[in-house]
Amino acid sequence: MKRLTYAMIGGGTGSFIGAVHRKALNLDGRAELVAGAFSSTPERSRQSGYELGVASDRVYGSFEELAREESARSDPADFVVIVTPNDTHYPATKACLEAGLHVVCDKPFTITSDQASELRDLASSKGLVCAVTYNYSGYPMVRHAAELVRGGMFGRIRKVYAEYHQGWLATELETSGQKQASWRTDPARAGIGGSLGDIGTHAEQLLRFVTGLEVETVCAELTSFGRGRVLDDDASVLLRLSDGAKGSLTCSQVCVGEANGLSLRVYGETGGLIWRQEQPERLTLTALDGSKTVLSRGSDRLSERAGHATRLPSGHPEGFIEAFANLYLGVIEAIESKRDSREPGPMASEVPTAEDGLLGVRFVEACVRSAQNNSAWTPV
Amino acid sequence: MKRLTYAMIGGGTGSFIGAVHRKALNLDGRAELVAGAFSSTPERSRQSGYELGVASDRVYGSFEELAREESARSDPADFVVIVTPNDTHYPATKACLEAGLHVVCDKPFTITSDQASELRDLASSKGLVCAVTYNYSGYPMVRHAAELVRGGMFGRIRKVYAEYHQGWLATELETSGQKQASWRTDPARAGIGGSLGDIGTHAEQLLRFVTGLEVETVCAELTSFGRGRVLDDDASVLLRLSDGAKGSLTCSQVCVGEANGLSLRVYGETGGLIWRQEQPERLTLTALDGSKTVLSRGSDRLSERAGHATRLPSGHPEGFIEAFANLYLGVIEAIESKRDSREPGPMASEVPTAEDGLLGVRFVEACVRSAQNNSAWTPV
Amino acid sequence: MKRLTYAMIGGGTGSFIGAVHRKALNLDGRAELVAGAFSSTPERSRQSGYELGVASDRVYGSFEELAREESARSDPADFVVIVTPNDTHYPATKACLEAGLHVVCDKPFTITSDQASELRDLASSKGLVCAVTYNYSGYPMVRHAAELVRGGMFGRIRKVYAEYHQGWLATELETSGQKQASWRTDPARAGIGGSLGDIGTHAEQLLRFVTGLEVETVCAELTSFGRGRVLDDDASVLLRLSDGAKGSLTCSQVCVGEANGLSLRVYGETGGLIWRQEQPERLTLTALDGSKTVLSRGSDRLSERAGHATRLPSGHPEGFIEAFANLYLGVIEAIESKRDSREPGPMASEVPTAEDGLLGVRFVEACVRSAQNNSAWTPV
Amino acid sequence: MKRLTYAMIGGGTGSFIGAVHRKALNLDGRAELVAGAFSSTPERSRQSGYELGVASDRVYGSFEELAREESARSDPADFVVIVTPNDTHYPATKACLEAGLHVVCDKPFTITSDQASELRDLASSKGLVCAVTYNYSGYPMVRHAAELVRGGMFGRIRKVYAEYHQGWLATELETSGQKQASWRTDPARAGIGGSLGDIGTHAEQLLRFVTGLEVETVCAELTSFGRGRVLDDDASVLLRLSDGAKGSLTCSQVCVGEANGLSLRVYGETGGLIWRQEQPERLTLTALDGSKTVLSRGSDRLSERAGHATRLPSGHPEGFIEAFANLYLGVIEAIESKRDSREPGPMASEVPTAEDGLLGVRFVEACVRSAQNNSAWTPV
Repeated sequence: MKRLTYAMIGGGTGSFIGAVHRKALNLDGRAELVAGAFSSTPERSRQSGYELGVASDRVYGSFEELAREESARSDPADFVVIVTPNDTHYPATKACLEAGLHVVCDKPFTITSDQASELRDLASSKGLVCAVTYNYSGYPMVRHAAELVRGGMFGRIRKVYAEYHQGWLATELETSGQKQASWRTDPARAGIGGSLGDIGTHAEQLLRFVTGLEVETVCAELTSFGRGRVLDDDASVLLRLSDGAKGSLTCSQVCVGEANGLSLRVYGETGGLIWRQEQPERLTLTALDGSKTVLSRGSDRLSERAGHATRLPSGHPEGFIEAFANLYLGVIEAIESKRDSREPGPMASEVPTAEDGLLGVRFVEACVRSAQNNSAWTPV
Repeated sequence: MKRLTYAMIGGGTGSFIGAVHRKALNLDGRAELVAGAFSSTPERSRQSGYELGVASDRVYGSFEELAREESARSDPADFVVIVTPNDTHYPATKACLEAGLHVVCDKPFTITSDQASELRDLASSKGLVCAVTYNYSGYPMVRHAAELVRGGMFGRIRKVYAEYHQGWLATELETSGQKQASWRTDPARAGIGGSLGDIGTHAEQLLRFVTGLEVETVCAELTSFGRGRVLDDDASVLLRLSDGAKGSLTCSQVCVGEANGLSLRVYGETGGLIWRQEQPERLTLTALDGSKTVLSRGSDRLSERAGHATRLPSGHPEGFIEAFANLYLGVIEAIESKRDSREPGPMASEVPTAEDGLLGVRFVEACVRSAQNNSAWTPV
Repeated sequence: MKRLTYAMIGGGTGSFIGAVHRKALNLDGRAELVAGAFSSTPERSRQSGYELGVASDRVYGSFEELAREESARSDPADFVVIVTPNDTHYPATKACLEAGLHVVCDKPFTITSDQASELRDLASSKGLVCAVTYNYSGYPMVRHAAELVRGGMFGRIRKVYAEYHQGWLATELETSGQKQASWRTDPARAGIGGSLGDIGTHAEQLLRFVTGLEVETVCAELTSFGRGRVLDDDASVLLRLSDGAKGSLTCSQVCVGEANGLSLRVYGETGGLIWRQEQPERLTLTALDGSKTVLSRGSDRLSERAGHATRLPSGHPEGFIEAFANLYLGVIEAIESKRDSREPGPMASEVPTAEDGLLGVRFVEACVRSAQNNSAWTPV
Repeated sequence: MKRLTYAMIGGGTGSFIGAVHRKALNLDGRAELVAGAFSSTPERSRQSGYELGVASDRVYGSFEELAREESARSDPADFVVIVTPNDTHYPATKACLEAGLHVVCDKPFTITSDQASELRDLASSKGLVCAVTYNYSGYPMVRHAAELVRGGMFGRIRKVYAEYHQGWLATELETSGQKQASWRTDPARAGIGGSLGDIGTHAEQLLRFVTGLEVETVCAELTSFGRGRVLDDDASVLLRLSDGAKGSLTCSQVCVGEANGLSLRVYGETGGLIWRQEQPERLTLTALDGSKTVLSRGSDRLSERAGHATRLPSGHPEGFIEAFANLYLGVIEAIESKRDSREPGPMASEVPTAEDGLLGVRFVEACVRSAQNNSAWTPV
């Protein structure tokens, strides 16, 4: 089988998330890194390209150059992965789409919803893939959860709890020069949402992915606990969802001792479910009789949809990389099916789109407006 | 040692909570049931009195009679336990206090905060014990948590999550004639709060008990999911707490499959803690280095305060009854120390008071006002 | 309802297990302490009797006196609870049975199986209740487990794991004068088994109670890790059970940090179950499809048998005392039904008998013989 | 960086473990598949080679051909991965080593200890890497556990519990033609151990890896529960370890509902630890004061040694593939350092060797001899 090729914008040596994307793409051996603009300084971009084994003539000094030069080649990269700080997502994605390149972009998609909306329309008019890496929806048990909830197993959904609690910004890490903390607490690079944009959007997308409900209006309380911080590092948001459901979404980066505490609890008329990212292999179902059933990834009992996203048998832990890789399997399927003018397989439809990216940015904007308006209910 | 004596208002045969109070009082053998007005119908009261071994001349047909007759005796009951539906709490407590009898009353304390305030003042002016059975603060690990948080172990508190999720009202149980469900969903007997009054007040008191913070203003979203229900069976409340802390309190009785999911998570500047009522023997501490330490009830490492509330060694599960009994040990100590004109021992100061009861009712009222005002921030 | 009366041998002030028995008997208010020989020194016995509110003329200086004097009364105690160190179990039980008194005796039942056998026959010939407090079989979820396993839910049983791991003797606590440690490590008072007798017998009885299988032969490795210890503080035992099943039983009192880690895992042809004493409210069922179902005490889904042993609804933790109290409800039912010449209710048949006590002692003897014979397979 | 190249013997399309090895090697992008004898039938080997993108002139019809042809090339594969059923391990490894090729072989290493011993000596005399894929020792938390135990944190080790419980052979899956079940239950292909060889050896190696203790003698009870099975599908083994420690090792493939339940518990004089493969990100430490501390992979608090084996921050689950990949990072380091004539980095010394493989086979042989001798203690 011929492997696809990809280019990367951002993600140079020392980048956490760039390495994650590459490992996720390595795992299944379905795509190969062939080009990149790995850093905003050409010298560091070259160094990273060298270390990553990219041919020197395909290491670029800027995303503009990458878009221009790759699209001019007879063998351009099949898609571009954008893993820069948030403020570069919009111009880089725009440049690539305009150059006719498929894009996979980190979340939050853009700084403003107008940007997101523009990119969504651009991708659509060009017929290009423009995926946003809401990677947590790549877990097989999350997909099985969506299958159950949307299939009506629990009746009409009443209440949803989405949480994403971390503790790594409990101290003012940004003042120590830590790179991740620095740009995430800087509104010029992160946008108007702090924890909201960084992790709240993951919780929001997870909720929508599993339940199929829309977040209609929000009532938000944002706080900056870290001294000198401008952006929220903690948020509590009440949600009114479509179909009369209600929700509570909390995200925080000052919950000392919590590492990556994303969780979702969904309760319908006749049952419910609980999923926690830190133990992603389990899905707990609740029932009217008070019993709880714990399903394990890899078991025969799960849906085909979970099966497609599964590599190992039950009890052989899969994790974050595999979930990420599942998103990429969908991206690859979407691109290959376009190339081959055939119907895409089921994994392609799992991929979060520019529309999802737009909804995330609108969620952040609505929360910020609500908070500025003393937590008044605000439409998304 | 001479045992105290007590009378009971409500709690006849078939009552769930009446039996709990009696078992909790039995456990340590420190007080004996000697009188009661067990039911609003004299015949059923008599039958219950007979089954409970109460002398027939001390079984009364009404709480008014009980208050009058017991206080007229040379050997009145040392205290009165009130375990009726909510609407009777106020008149029964008032009658007992006016008759000079110490009172232990179930929560929520009263229907209105004016009633609660009046009772608090009455108890105070009479020098009588008037306790409210927020029983969850009787758990040793909750008391140890309070010791740690209030002692400053985690620095200034930033964020608190209080939850109380049940599922037993997910169906319209009240239409089947189930007694507990019937009065709890009836505003005439339950008051203006449904899940808020029944369980939300427990979560609110637990939060205050552990952190020492006050709930200053609330922003509440109340829902009645059960068909035909007037009162909330689900509530999500944002909290602004004293000292700049923030909180999220959710309570629900429609979370299918959840039995009695009360939990508290507290995060300060340098650490945090997690306690869950369904596994009450553990207290988990979180730390900046990401490790979690699980303390067990009964271990030498705990505070004296936890030790006072402990009967069995670690690994020999104590539960709900023991926590309840701890409240009663405090009540008994308060009464005996008054009787003997001595300083009360440490357990007495743990007992939730009429003031706590008042704060609970004011919390319910503020949430209902906020909800009526489209979730506007409302002072408690 | 008229309450039964009981006397106690051992269990004076400061005794751990004596207080447990009394609290368990208090809980349901079905029996009253009226007499006792609380200590081997008459002065301390008197002091304990005073503190426990026992009339001074029914506080005795020895178990012989108690048996003689109580049986001579017109209103003797309805039963006698024996909570002394092991070596006194046999003579005290014998004296009481010969005096015509029902007995509840702590485990291990006796020092030798000949003694146990004699007592069993004596109780039988006298028509007296002679119960042995294997209290862990009092938990509702253990009884439900027995119902499922013996009812054939999992097909033929293949493999059973019974564990009882504690850590309290990891240091040489007996050298510090700690009372519990002192007699348990002293063969003169404890018998030939250390951890085997103290906790291994609980695991053995639990295994038999749930599965209905007999322990036919054992292959045992015993170790004394504590310096200067004569008796085992650690044991690993392979089991050949009836019906072709196999087992592994380990008990230890040097597993640092383990409090009271009794657990049972049973696997049959088509399913299995897991129960852990430190979280006694749950029973986990395993299935061929790899899912696990967690049942909660108090749920409607459980057997009547579990229901009989249940006081509180699901989610309101019951614990060690309630399980102990369930044994006593059975004892009381057994005694009352004999007194009233009627068929006993179902709780009576749950009570561990002298026969169970005998099997426990024979298990200890077989393990010790096996260990002395370099772990040769040895019949029980 | 130049990547190493590898060949594979076995592991054709449809093989579970072959795909695992490839994904683990893909993950870090450090080695590339260039050759293979993927199946014992040349046609299927060719088909697999094609699907895996291997050049057709390097797809071989047998391991003998592979060893001969690759070693004759100017650019032979840098190492050979052997993932056939057990009976082929010995001849394939021998052929490769004799041809001067480094080898990574699945466990159990060989059918007999004589074979293993011969291979160990051969690799040694040739100066070749000969690794055995005891992959569970690749988990960071296992390596941290080893660091703590061997560093003396818990004092002298007293008791070790190693378990490996699965349920997938609870039914006679081999009669349905399931490939994995078929060869594992066939003594001609699996050797003399069933569950013992397949999973018991993992538990044995894990125990040795973490504690540094040797298994000196064993007392084993083996059972074949599956109808018609010749090899054990269940084993319980008592262990006498070096330095006076004792152990219990149980492995089973008929524990219905258990997926891949490998766990290790180690108790020393002053503390202990618990690790469970199905939740590999946690390591629980036990202490004399009864508290338990849960460490998370990725936290700063862990040893450098754990850090070397870590890719993602805490809370971003790593799993089975990453652990496997850690073994390969060590293999690659060992090969590269030999090639470059330099000291190997720390990961190389973590790699299980032919000596470990030999100990595993001797463990199986000792258990089988013990079982044949009615569980007599038998030296390893």
